[in-house]
Amino acid sequence: MKIIIDAFGGDNAPLEVIKGSIDAKKDFGVDIVLCGDEKKIKETAQKNTLNIEGFEIINADGIIDVCEEPTEILKSRKDCSMAVAFKALAEGKGDAFVSAGSTGALVVGATFIVKRLKGIKRPALATVLPTATTPVMLLDSGANADCRPEMLQQFAVMGSTYMKNIMKVENPKVGLANIGAEPSKGRELELETYKILKDNNNINFVGNIEARQIPLGDCDVVVTDGFSGNLLLKLYEGMGKFFSGELKNILTSSAKSKVAAMLIMNNIKEFKKKVDYSEHGGAPLLGTSKPVIKAHGSSDAKAFYNAIRQAKQTVETDMIQQFHAALNSDKK
Amino acid sequence: MKIIIDAFGGDNAPLEVIKGSIDAKKDFGVDIVLCGDEKKIKETAQKNTLNIEGFEIINADGIIDVCEEPTEILKSRKDCSMAVAFKALAEGKGDAFVSAGSTGALVVGATFIVKRLKGIKRPALATVLPTATTPVMLLDSGANADCRPEMLQQFAVMGSTYMKNIMKVENPKVGLANIGAEPSKGRELELETYKILKDNNNINFVGNIEARQIPLGDCDVVVTDGFSGNLLLKLYEGMGKFFSGELKNILTSSAKSKVAAMLIMNNIKEFKKKVDYSEHGGAPLLGTSKPVIKAHGSSDAKAFYNAIRQAKQTVETDMIQQFHAALNSDKK
Repeated sequence: MKIIIDAFGGDNAPLEVIKGSIDAKKDFGVDIVLCGDEKKIKETAQKNTLNIEGFEIINADGIIDVCEEPTEILKSRKDCSMAVAFKALAEGKGDAFVSAGSTGALVVGATFIVKRLKGIKRPALATVLPTATTPVMLLDSGANADCRPEMLQQFAVMGSTYMKNIMKVENPKVGLANIGAEPSKGRELELETYKILKDNNNINFVGNIEARQIPLGDCDVVVTDGFSGNLLLKLYEGMGKFFSGELKNILTSSAKSKVAAMLIMNNIKEFKKKVDYSEHGGAPLLGTSKPVIKAHGSSDAKAFYNAIRQAKQTVETDMIQQFHAALNSDKK
Repeated sequence: MKIIIDAFGGDNAPLEVIKGSIDAKKDFGVDIVLCGDEKKIKETAQKNTLNIEGFEIINADGIIDVCEEPTEILKSRKDCSMAVAFKALAEGKGDAFVSAGSTGALVVGATFIVKRLKGIKRPALATVLPTATTPVMLLDSGANADCRPEMLQQFAVMGSTYMKNIMKVENPKVGLANIGAEPSKGRELELETYKILKDNNNINFVGNIEARQIPLGDCDVVVTDGFSGNLLLKLYEGMGKFFSGELKNILTSSAKSKVAAMLIMNNIKEFKKKVDYSEHGGAPLLGTSKPVIKAHGSSDAKAFYNAIRQAKQTVETDMIQQFHAALNSDKK
């Protein structure tokens, strides 16, 4: 199995990308294809005495920055590392793709270079988040600012299939993010989506879910439009920072509290591990014709390592075929 | 000054409402008008040896439940405690209003019985939330699921005026909740709103704000539609519960951690106070012709006490007139 990697995506590229790839190749037995400036990749490896023997490298000039218009990946940036990697994926030079680069460019590139899975209206960015119980998948967490009910239904089916296959959740509970539990709550989008999801026998739809229930772990899959999903995802992140900061203040405020900090050090570490994005790998873009994983922009070697594991699992479990089957049985 | 109170709104009515009102009358020197079943109010006071001498009581039959259709406050429930209280406010029998009852009914009742301030398209529910620095006002946090740019502009002006006058924030920073910092990000609503806010000289618009920045305290006022705002508000609440739960688990997991808990007990209490909704009072519904405060559904006496203080401040600072002035200078 070959995993194609955008070697120049994310804040810590290419060094951490290379490190994570080396570990992943060793532990998971996958072949690695690095896309990006070949000279820089080799220099970085040499300078850090990293052995990239056996790695395939596809040379690409430049990168697409997060500040650039995403559609530039099809135009002025069509030779950047991410675009070249997508082309390699589309041409069958690898089985799955990982990048920590611009989310916007990734969505555009995956949609127009790799193409969508037949019948899929829009691919959705799916993020797995920690909760008080088991992790929850939130989608769409940012690929499509505006969505229609039939798109949310496809997200529900794909999210459910992913949680079953990769996260081994039996009969995943699917909730629709809303401002109240009653079917009459929400905008036109939620009213219509509720009706469709309720009638879909291929998912375990448990109704509307208010945002306060999400971190308490009431659902396994939460579907919403990409605007709302992105607000939720980023607030999740921000609240984590807020509380970590407050906890740090508490544990460093006096000699007494520093003693307390030492006493609970291990528990705090465990908690941090639980809420650490890099443990979960990346966010899969669901609905493309080949597996695409978006790693967090600030991914380190461990995060890349886990994203590659996730890419491998997606290929192994034949996720794309599973989606195809689930979406078609859906039509019956 | 007379504060009209829905004595039967919220989970802890009427006992906690009465308790909070007694304390508020004593400390703030306001007169209290309680609306609701007179017999029950008097019985509750007597049973709990609470002195409600000097309280005006306006009798009302029944309450409107959170599960009922909000518009029923104008129809089958037009004699409930909240409806009668709104009528009293509209007729000038008091200067401001407090209720912990159904948010939906409160928005409908305030809009159609008390009426909007002249020129206001929609009133917005404004919630003050704790952050790593100073509190932030989030509006609309749930009154209007669908909004137009001109509504968001009015929210920005009212939120800004409120933070200046009641929270004493100098030149409040106003942000537009969005999925990216660039002006080109978001839906049609955000694209249009950005343009209008940028050109408004009456507010200190600092641009788009991503949800992760909200709890870090980057803004004083965050404007968004009531659907997004309600998701954000409730996730804020849910994340608080999630982290409090995790912290509790950490601090009770072993003998060692219980010692740690004792060492940082005071800091934890201080932190809890910081994030406790009841300290901030209620959420003002901004844009009505008279001050309306929505207290949290699970308000206790302290929360009612603080909501009444807030109502008093709103009257004292002549908030409605301030809105009027700010919105009109806006048209120049």
